[in-house]
Amino acid sequence: MSKPEYVDIVEKIYEKTKGKKTKEFKYIGKHIIKWDAIDKISGKAWFTADLKKLYQNAVFVYSVRTKYAHALIKKIDVSDAEKYPGVIKVITAKDIPGINDVGYVIPDQPLLADKKVRYIGDTIALIVAENYENALEAADLVRVEYEPLEVILDPLKIVEWGGLQEKEHTLIHDERGSDVVSRYKIRRGDVKKAFQEAAVVIENEYRTPMQEHAYLEPEAALAIPQPDGGVTIYAKTQCPFDTRKAVAQVLGLPFNKVRVIAPPLGGGFGGAEDVGNEIAAKTALAAIFTGRPAFLVFTREESIIGHSKRHPMIARYKHAATRDGRLLAVEAEIILDTGAYASLGPFVGWRAIVHSTGPYKVPNAKVDLAVVYTNKVYAGAFRGFGNPQVAFAHERQMDLLAEELGLDPVELRLKNILRNGDRTVHGQLLSHGVGLEEAILKAVEAANWYEKRKLYSQQKGLVRRGIGIAVFYHGNSIGAEGADFSSATIIIQRDGSIIFRTGLTDFGQGAIQGIVNIIAETLGVPPSYVKVEWPDTASTPDAGPTVASRSTVMGGNAALVAAYKLRQRLNKLAGEILGCDPDDIVIDAPDVYCRSDPNLKITWQELVEQSFWKGVPIQEFGYFRAPPAEWDEETGQGAPYMHYTFGAIISDVVVDLETGVARVKEAVTAYDIGRVINRTGAEHHAVGGYIQGMGYALMEDIYHAPDGRVYNKNLSTYHIPTGLDIPEKIKAIWVEAGFNRGPYGAKGLGEPSIVGIAPSIANAVAHALGGGRNVNKDINRIPLTPDYVYSIIKKHGLIKKYKA
Amino acid sequence: MSKPEYVDIVEKIYEKTKGKKTKEFKYIGKHIIKWDAIDKISGKAWFTADLKKLYQNAVFVYSVRTKYAHALIKKIDVSDAEKYPGVIKVITAKDIPGINDVGYVIPDQPLLADKKVRYIGDTIALIVAENYENALEAADLVRVEYEPLEVILDPLKIVEWGGLQEKEHTLIHDERGSDVVSRYKIRRGDVKKAFQEAAVVIENEYRTPMQEHAYLEPEAALAIPQPDGGVTIYAKTQCPFDTRKAVAQVLGLPFNKVRVIAPPLGGGFGGAEDVGNEIAAKTALAAIFTGRPAFLVFTREESIIGHSKRHPMIARYKHAATRDGRLLAVEAEIILDTGAYASLGPFVGWRAIVHSTGPYKVPNAKVDLAVVYTNKVYAGAFRGFGNPQVAFAHERQMDLLAEELGLDPVELRLKNILRNGDRTVHGQLLSHGVGLEEAILKAVEAANWYEKRKLYSQQKGLVRRGIGIAVFYHGNSIGAEGADFSSATIIIQRDGSIIFRTGLTDFGQGAIQGIVNIIAETLGVPPSYVKVEWPDTASTPDAGPTVASRSTVMGGNAALVAAYKLRQRLNKLAGEILGCDPDDIVIDAPDVYCRSDPNLKITWQELVEQSFWKGVPIQEFGYFRAPPAEWDEETGQGAPYMHYTFGAIISDVVVDLETGVARVKEAVTAYDIGRVINRTGAEHHAVGGYIQGMGYALMEDIYHAPDGRVYNKNLSTYHIPTGLDIPEKIKAIWVEAGFNRGPYGAKGLGEPSIVGIAPSIANAVAHALGGGRNVNKDINRIPLTPDYVYSIIKKHGLIKKYKA
Repeated sequence: MSKPEYVDIVEKIYEKTKGKKTKEFKYIGKHIIKWDAIDKISGKAWFTADLKKLYQNAVFVYSVRTKYAHALIKKIDVSDAEKYPGVIKVITAKDIPGINDVGYVIPDQPLLADKKVRYIGDTIALIVAENYENALEAADLVRVEYEPLEVILDPLKIVEWGGLQEKEHTLIHDERGSDVVSRYKIRRGDVKKAFQEAAVVIENEYRTPMQEHAYLEPEAALAIPQPDGGVTIYAKTQCPFDTRKAVAQVLGLPFNKVRVIAPPLGGGFGGAEDVGNEIAAKTALAAIFTGRPAFLVFTREESIIGHSKRHPMIARYKHAATRDGRLLAVEAEIILDTGAYASLGPFVGWRAIVHSTGPYKVPNAKVDLAVVYTNKVYAGAFRGFGNPQVAFAHERQMDLLAEELGLDPVELRLKNILRNGDRTVHGQLLSHGVGLEEAILKAVEAANWYEKRKLYSQQKGLVRRGIGIAVFYHGNSIGAEGADFSSATIIIQRDGSIIFRTGLTDFGQGAIQGIVNIIAETLGVPPSYVKVEWPDTASTPDAGPTVASRSTVMGGNAALVAAYKLRQRLNKLAGEILGCDPDDIVIDAPDVYCRSDPNLKITWQELVEQSFWKGVPIQEFGYFRAPPAEWDEETGQGAPYMHYTFGAIISDVVVDLETGVARVKEAVTAYDIGRVINRTGAEHHAVGGYIQGMGYALMEDIYHAPDGRVYNKNLSTYHIPTGLDIPEKIKAIWVEAGFNRGPYGAKGLGEPSIVGIAPSIANAVAHALGGGRNVNKDINRIPLTPDYVYSIIKKHGLIKKYKA
Repeated sequence: MSKPEYVDIVEKIYEKTKGKKTKEFKYIGKHIIKWDAIDKISGKAWFTADLKKLYQNAVFVYSVRTKYAHALIKKIDVSDAEKYPGVIKVITAKDIPGINDVGYVIPDQPLLADKKVRYIGDTIALIVAENYENALEAADLVRVEYEPLEVILDPLKIVEWGGLQEKEHTLIHDERGSDVVSRYKIRRGDVKKAFQEAAVVIENEYRTPMQEHAYLEPEAALAIPQPDGGVTIYAKTQCPFDTRKAVAQVLGLPFNKVRVIAPPLGGGFGGAEDVGNEIAAKTALAAIFTGRPAFLVFTREESIIGHSKRHPMIARYKHAATRDGRLLAVEAEIILDTGAYASLGPFVGWRAIVHSTGPYKVPNAKVDLAVVYTNKVYAGAFRGFGNPQVAFAHERQMDLLAEELGLDPVELRLKNILRNGDRTVHGQLLSHGVGLEEAILKAVEAANWYEKRKLYSQQKGLVRRGIGIAVFYHGNSIGAEGADFSSATIIIQRDGSIIFRTGLTDFGQGAIQGIVNIIAETLGVPPSYVKVEWPDTASTPDAGPTVASRSTVMGGNAALVAAYKLRQRLNKLAGEILGCDPDDIVIDAPDVYCRSDPNLKITWQELVEQSFWKGVPIQEFGYFRAPPAEWDEETGQGAPYMHYTFGAIISDVVVDLETGVARVKEAVTAYDIGRVINRTGAEHHAVGGYIQGMGYALMEDIYHAPDGRVYNKNLSTYHIPTGLDIPEKIKAIWVEAGFNRGPYGAKGLGEPSIVGIAPSIANAVAHALGGGRNVNKDINRIPLTPDYVYSIIKKHGLIKKYKA
């Protein structure tokens, strides 16, 4: 098959611009504030729940949830609830006209539980009432007979070490016959032989927590029934097209009768990927049954128990190396706990195994991974998507190895990292665009690594500083997880203003402003000319999901293709009008002129107007499909992602040995993102990703009671970093190693900005504790809460040691 | 310039299908009911005013209109009105942030009158109130000081015969320095010589009335202020992009901050072209000023005095012919009365002059036309757009000429009509696709013309039958009136369902279902797969205005181009999957197979799904631009339209000499529309166009009092045909002479279906009266109301004559 035109365009732009410095661009790489930042800060912007003010006669939709985390449902009686004043309808599973399932990857998740409940967030019935209070009161009148079952919270009750074989246990998904959702493996080289020949072997077990997205805006949806029997839904969703599919399935309607519009989102982080489907389907059902607009908004408690989380991981890692620090082999077993439902779990597991050995040359590897069900709140997509978990493990391993070898952690990494021309553990050749070494060296320099490392190693006393590094890589876009395409719609209006549409959402990550920069640079117009319309399944082609750090790369490429084609046509037309060569045309709106003779000129608006008279269409769909990924299920060999973002993080912490409190003082992040598209957005990611990763490292976990209830289901008990926790300085360094199939060479940053944070902090904490091999081995789980850190301090008598 | 790809595609499809019969198509030419017909009939569909039920907190916007038809405004005092309970704001011209003008073609029409009023519908102020009642009451408190001016209602006070020079008069548009809006002319051959050499000369004066569109749905608009300072407006408008431009101008916003959405329209007929801009701008102003949704709906009285009408015409025609009936020359002066504002008047005037001599070979012509202001309700677009006026004149002239020559009216026409290879009066060569002769012959046969003509000529008594014919042509699309482009958006959804968008509206004409048929035929899917979304300026490119019978041809071509490109890609993909040649692929959704081996098959949905995996985009913008029209302003020579629809109408009437009541008994319409796209739609046009034309011929006129008020401003006094007036039979005949740049060869029908009706009825009435030359000359105006017909009967003593 010949190379598609869209790939050709992206490569051509890359070749043309790859040597350029930021100052040589007009908009790319500059500090540009998001188009709606001020509206959001000033409270003018509408989020989904704000739309409720516009529509009259809306019903409220309340989710009646289970009282048991694991039970059979014997009977549901809603007759009393239906009689309650203000209640219009109570909807249960039997009312669903289509398929009662909102499973994201596999059909394992009923929208409304009918036979069984599997976690404390499962919905039994929907109360559709005149208002929230009526609904809440009526909820108590829904009578359910349960037959409680054993609640399983420990994934090691599902599978066991030494092959991750499934154990005897009460099946959570008995209809599937197994509680292992999916398995993945990597088989490379001769691991057995490598371990036999290794000079050094490092072995440890790691645990990472269930993390809550804790977005500012809880879930909200508003469905409007349509005259043709369809429904239009405004919903907090990262992926309007996936949400549409889910709703269409529940309602039994074709896609074109379900319209999903995504208003601005107050944060997503992956967590608005699956729950958006659920809330949209719930309101859509209510709208269809009542013929009235139907609205829901979750309380924070409902949000925390009702939407997906980051998968907790338990893993055992074994690294083998030569005496001089060359990695020989990695062997690992990884268990991801997906809670009650698979959601994105199968894909999270796959991404985890792909990245499981880190950005290193690993000649021999044997990794097994299982994603298993428990009766916890279900886990799904969360910024990093499996990679922060394994990165914690492999980067702790590297620090243990460095200590064992008596090497500086940076030196050990530099001996093993991937560089241009190397092959990954999957055998993928990285021909170009690997900026990891540059990232490490720049971070090391900026952090004053060697000096601090030495200084902190010699410190005395009970308040101790430590500095740690972590490196990582992160595959761009969805790779072998699915059909990897995107699209963009650019329509130049007759007055020269521009409408841009994409099915990708700005859920806080800011990528859409980056795409606007790409359009602006390519067309030659200021970003302010471009209006970004709300994602709308009825107005734009499917752009694929807004996940996997794919918006800038995939969405950006699609927009680049559209803008480039438009630019070509406009250059040709301008050339005809002005009498110079199309390649000689400069567009610097509002000016358009010939480079060779700037007196030959026309305004942007005149040029646009002429296109209407000369029959030149000035609308384009841009489209881009990633080169097909390769993945051999049996060996984990292939080319799982089209390219990788690289990064090196250095964290500088202080640990109070008397309280166990660890705090980050300052940090340096160095990311190779190919090309900086919007410097403001990139910087915000460096900071935002760091802070969220710091919460992951130091304080965040969802705690389940033995009966499956969530202890900390509010932000008063689920702690995230506050303003006071933020480090004094987070320095962002950008490496622009390029990528021939990224827009202007860009790669993704959304997820990568969290991946390396927790291990860099954990490594710094270990450094601060300075306790040597035994202490280091105990820094094997996050969050490093004061309790946990203090337990290590106590166990190893560190206070005594440093007081001395 | 090389031929654009889009022209190539349209011509290719035409060449491939031009010999085909209807039965060889799957959807083209079949009886297919409009997608929303049932929803509309059953009351489920939402029109603009229905949306009011959805939005809460909406303010009502009431237009305070002038008390004088022509006056200077000395002072406007809204202070009392603003204090009235429930009034939130009173908006006057001084509040307008942008430009206070909604003139459609020229900037002559203030949205809110400030210096002057020019007709009884002019708006002085907008009362923005909690509800309609508050607003209505407060309207009385708006105090305006006027200085009344002479009210001019007769266009012959503006210009005079013999060159149409402007006379001394009180200027209505003193700011323009003239009350002649525009002038056009045709100069061909040597008219003077032709008249000198002619054997027969026929001369007469003709008058046609001001016609009201009388659509079911009065004007309504609902504007929602947006967080970014922009506004979204749902409005009854035929042309959402023109409406957006008008609103943007009034508000001083870029186009991409004004979004206009057109819900289903309850009739337009051209009348929703200009007033849509006005009502949208009025609600948008109120929304911006109050920060609340703003709504208006016109009463029928407001609709009749507040929206444009069909231009009344006064014309003098002189035809010269040889003794054997060959037309030698036409000389004419035509005055179109555009009332207070130009609206579409300049374009109506141009279309009138283009068609002024009818579908005949006219070797010598001298025609002058002036569009003039008066203080009447303003005139704008109305189905036919100048052509029904001139068609009445030239077809009455042909019947007078036939009588003078002693020829049958059909025979005379057959001697003179345009055929393939002929040139129009503008010198335009019609190389192909002229089906007028076939239309005449088929109509004549179906109507039993010769027998009835003879029979009725011999009848006796006071209830008399008559049969009359009229022929016409009608230029397709907008020709030299503007940039003549259209566009279409087709997005195939991942489940195989399809979303189709166009900026063209279905305002009752049904053309959009025809476009759906074109998409269905081209892609190979049932029309039911296609969902037509509401026109929306933020979701689709400008498709040009929905006017000029251009939807099927221009919009159809744009959709055809998009569908064809998609089909090519899908055929290629299917060929790759099934292992046969792309040209061998048959798509007959849900089946897709190889023609050479139908066992090689895949479903439509599978094929669509594969396109996502193989990187084949299945969305397309279709675009088409008509070949540039040519028009020499000095001579009226060129090629004003890309092609013409032709038609022959035969009406069979009965006239009661004692009452003057004329009624149509039955009729035959034969239209050459190139290719029938949707038979149901075409048939509805044949009937609907006939009935509206019959109203024009027999009963409709807007009567102004001397002070400029409208006497008949409700449907109780403005009479349109009722069910009881409809002829017993209207037989529709279709000629499919093709057109190489129409979709599948199609031409337009929307306007043509009214053009020939009135003259055919008038000719039949003349035949019924049977009074010879003198009586015939008096059948020179419409409507032929009982009063007027009886006045002729009386004047010529016909009762006495036929009683004898």
